[in-house]
Amino acid sequence: MILPSKRSAVEPFHAMDVLAEATKARQAGRPVISMAVGQPSAPAPRAAEAALAHGRIGYTDALGLPELRKAIAGHYADRHGVEVDPARIAITTGSSAGFNLAFLGLFDAGDQVAIARPGYPAYRAILGALGLTAVEVAVNAATGFTLTPESLEAAERETGKPIRGVLLASPANPTGTVTGRAGLKALADWCAARGAAFISDEIYHGLTFTGEETSALELTQDVVVINSFSKYYCMTGWRIGWMVLPENLVRPLECLAQSLYISAPELSQIAAVAALGAGEELDACKQTYAANRAFLMRRLPEIGLPLLSPMDGAFYAYADVSAHTNDSMAFAKRMLAEISVAATPGFDFDPLEGHRALRLSYAGSQAEIEEAVNRMEGWLKR
Amino acid sequence: MILPSKRSAVEPFHAMDVLAEATKARQAGRPVISMAVGQPSAPAPRAAEAALAHGRIGYTDALGLPELRKAIAGHYADRHGVEVDPARIAITTGSSAGFNLAFLGLFDAGDQVAIARPGYPAYRAILGALGLTAVEVAVNAATGFTLTPESLEAAERETGKPIRGVLLASPANPTGTVTGRAGLKALADWCAARGAAFISDEIYHGLTFTGEETSALELTQDVVVINSFSKYYCMTGWRIGWMVLPENLVRPLECLAQSLYISAPELSQIAAVAALGAGEELDACKQTYAANRAFLMRRLPEIGLPLLSPMDGAFYAYADVSAHTNDSMAFAKRMLAEISVAATPGFDFDPLEGHRALRLSYAGSQAEIEEAVNRMEGWLKR
Repeated sequence: MILPSKRSAVEPFHAMDVLAEATKARQAGRPVISMAVGQPSAPAPRAAEAALAHGRIGYTDALGLPELRKAIAGHYADRHGVEVDPARIAITTGSSAGFNLAFLGLFDAGDQVAIARPGYPAYRAILGALGLTAVEVAVNAATGFTLTPESLEAAERETGKPIRGVLLASPANPTGTVTGRAGLKALADWCAARGAAFISDEIYHGLTFTGEETSALELTQDVVVINSFSKYYCMTGWRIGWMVLPENLVRPLECLAQSLYISAPELSQIAAVAALGAGEELDACKQTYAANRAFLMRRLPEIGLPLLSPMDGAFYAYADVSAHTNDSMAFAKRMLAEISVAATPGFDFDPLEGHRALRLSYAGSQAEIEEAVNRMEGWLKR
Repeated sequence: MILPSKRSAVEPFHAMDVLAEATKARQAGRPVISMAVGQPSAPAPRAAEAALAHGRIGYTDALGLPELRKAIAGHYADRHGVEVDPARIAITTGSSAGFNLAFLGLFDAGDQVAIARPGYPAYRAILGALGLTAVEVAVNAATGFTLTPESLEAAERETGKPIRGVLLASPANPTGTVTGRAGLKALADWCAARGAAFISDEIYHGLTFTGEETSALELTQDVVVINSFSKYYCMTGWRIGWMVLPENLVRPLECLAQSLYISAPELSQIAAVAALGAGEELDACKQTYAANRAFLMRRLPEIGLPLLSPMDGAFYAYADVSAHTNDSMAFAKRMLAEISVAATPGFDFDPLEGHRALRLSYAGSQAEIEEAVNRMEGWLKR
C-alpha cells in the first residue's frame, strides 16, 4: 500500500473543509449562506467576462502574457507612483502559486520564516510541506495587530535561530489590520539589515476602509510582492495573481514556474487585463463590503460576538465566540448543521488561541449577511 | 539583497524558454512555426467553449466539482471497464499540480524516485526542488524504450539506496513509447513487492497510434494515476487535469491541495465536463496527428533527421541531430533565428545524451508541419 509522506501531514485548511460541507448541504437543498470563504459574491467585472469570447486558449510564457505584465506595471505607476519594469512581474496561478514559488525560491529546508498569528493558514501549511519552519509571531492589541521588529526579535531569541524571511499581509486576513507606511518601512529595513527576505502579501489591496494603503514597492525594490485578482477584482475561481520580484530573482523563479505550473490559465490572464480597467464596477463592490462591514461592526457585538481585531481592511470579521464555546470548530460545524450558516473556525488562523474565534467573511451580498446575522442571533439566544 | 534558495537552482524547462523566444519573434512579425511545445493547434471542443457562458465563477471544493469527478469516473467505466469511486478522483490545476501533489504527498526529502531518461523535464525539476533525488534510468532500444524491473534494479544497485517511487508515462514524452499491459503490470508488481509508490502518468492517453492503451487502474488500485485535459482534449491553457488516488491518500492530498492550490479554475472544470463528451471532435484531431505522424516518420529521416525512438503514441518525434551538431540547444536557437521554426533541444529530456536530439511536436496543423519540414530541409542542405 502506498503511504503518505511525513510532510504531507499538514493541517487541513478548515475553511475549505467548511466549503465542502456547505456544498454538500446546498446540494441537499438547504438554504446555506456561506461566510466561510473569502470570496466576493459579485461576478468578475463585465469586461473580464467579455474576454471569454476569446478564441484559442493555450500555454502562455511561464511568466505570463506580456500585455498583462505591462498592464500591471501601469497599475503600479497609476496607483502607487512607482515605476516597475514589466520584466519583474510574474503572472501566477492565483496567489497560491506566488506563495509556493516564493517559499521554494527564497528558502532552503530548515529555514525559519516569520508570519503573523492569527494569519492565513495556507502560509503555515505550505511552509511546512516545503520543509520550512513557520515562526508564528503573535499579533494583538499590544503590537497593533501587526508584526514589528521588536516582536520578530523576541521570536528569534526564543527560537535561537535566525529568521530568514518575514511575510506580512496588509490588509491582513483574518484580523483586517492595515499596516501603514511607517510600519512596513520598519519591517523592510529590519529585513534588509540582516539579509532576510521581505515578502509583502498585498492580495487585499483595494479593500482598505481605514488607514493608508501602501505597497511595499513604494519603500524598497528588494521585496517580493504577492498579489491576486481574487479579492478586489472578484476573480477567485479564475485562479490568477501576480508577483513583483527583485530583478535577480526573476530567472530562478521563472525556472521553477516553468516546471511547477507551465503557465497560469490563459483565459484568466486575458480577463485580468480587462479587470484592471474596471475600477468603477469594482468600487461599487467595495461599497457593498463597506456597508456589510458597518453592519457587522454594529451587529456582531450586539448578538454576543465581540470583535477580536480591527476591521480596517480585507473583508473579514474576526469574532470572539468564547462566551458560547471553547471549541470554535465544533461551534462552526453546529452552526452550519443547525442554521445553515457557514463560517470558519479560528483554529485555521491561530493554532493556539483560535479555539475561541470565528472568522466571518463579509464579501457576500448585504441581504445574505443580514439574513445570516438574523439566523445567528436567534440561534445564540437558544 | 534577497538571494535565491539553493533548491531554486533547477534546470530551465528549455521548451518554455523556446516558447518565450518564439513569442517574441512572432510579436516582431516573423512567420514562426512552433513545434516546441506539446500543444494542440485545435481549440478546445465546442461544447467546452460553450461552458464559458456560465455565470459566476468561484472557488470549488479543493478536490473539484462533484459533477466533473463523477464524469471522470464514468470515463474509466466506459473506456477501461474499471469502477472508480468519484471520491478517489482529485481535480488538479493541470497535471503539473498532480505531479507536485504526488511528489509532496508520497515522498519525504532525500527519497529516490525513478524516472525514464529521456523523459519529461519537469519531473526532474519538481523532484529536485522538493528535495527528492530523481534516479534517471536510461530507456533505449535494449529496454523497449521503457522502464523495466531489471533496469530499476540495476539503477538501485548503482545508487546503493532504495527506490521509493517509480513514475512512468505511457504514451511517453518525448519517446512516444506505449508501455503495454504486461510491461505496466511488471512495474506495478515490482513496486508493490517492495512498498514503492507507482505513479502512472497517463496524460497522453487517447493518443496511442500503435499498441494497446492500458490504464494502470486496470491492473491495480494501489497506484497514483495522473491525467490531464491538455493533450487529447486540447485544453492546455485551461490548466485542468486530474488524479486517481488510492483511498488512503485522498485526505492527505486534499489537505495539501487546499493550501497549495485552493482549487482548480472553476470555468475549466465546467468546460472539462463538456470536453469528456466531445469524442467525435477530438478523434478528428487525432486523425490530424496521425497524418502528421506518418508524414514525419517518412520525411524526417529523408531530410537528415533519423528518429531516435518509436512514435507509437503522444505527438512527438524525437530526432537525431548528431549529423549536424553536437549541441542541440545551439542548433534549436539557430533554427528559430534563421528559419523561424521552434523545436525543443533534447537536453530538456536527457541531460546526458540530449545534446544530439531534438523534439518536434506534431500537434500542429498539417500545413504548419509540412511548411516547417520544408524550411528545415532547405536549411539543413545549406
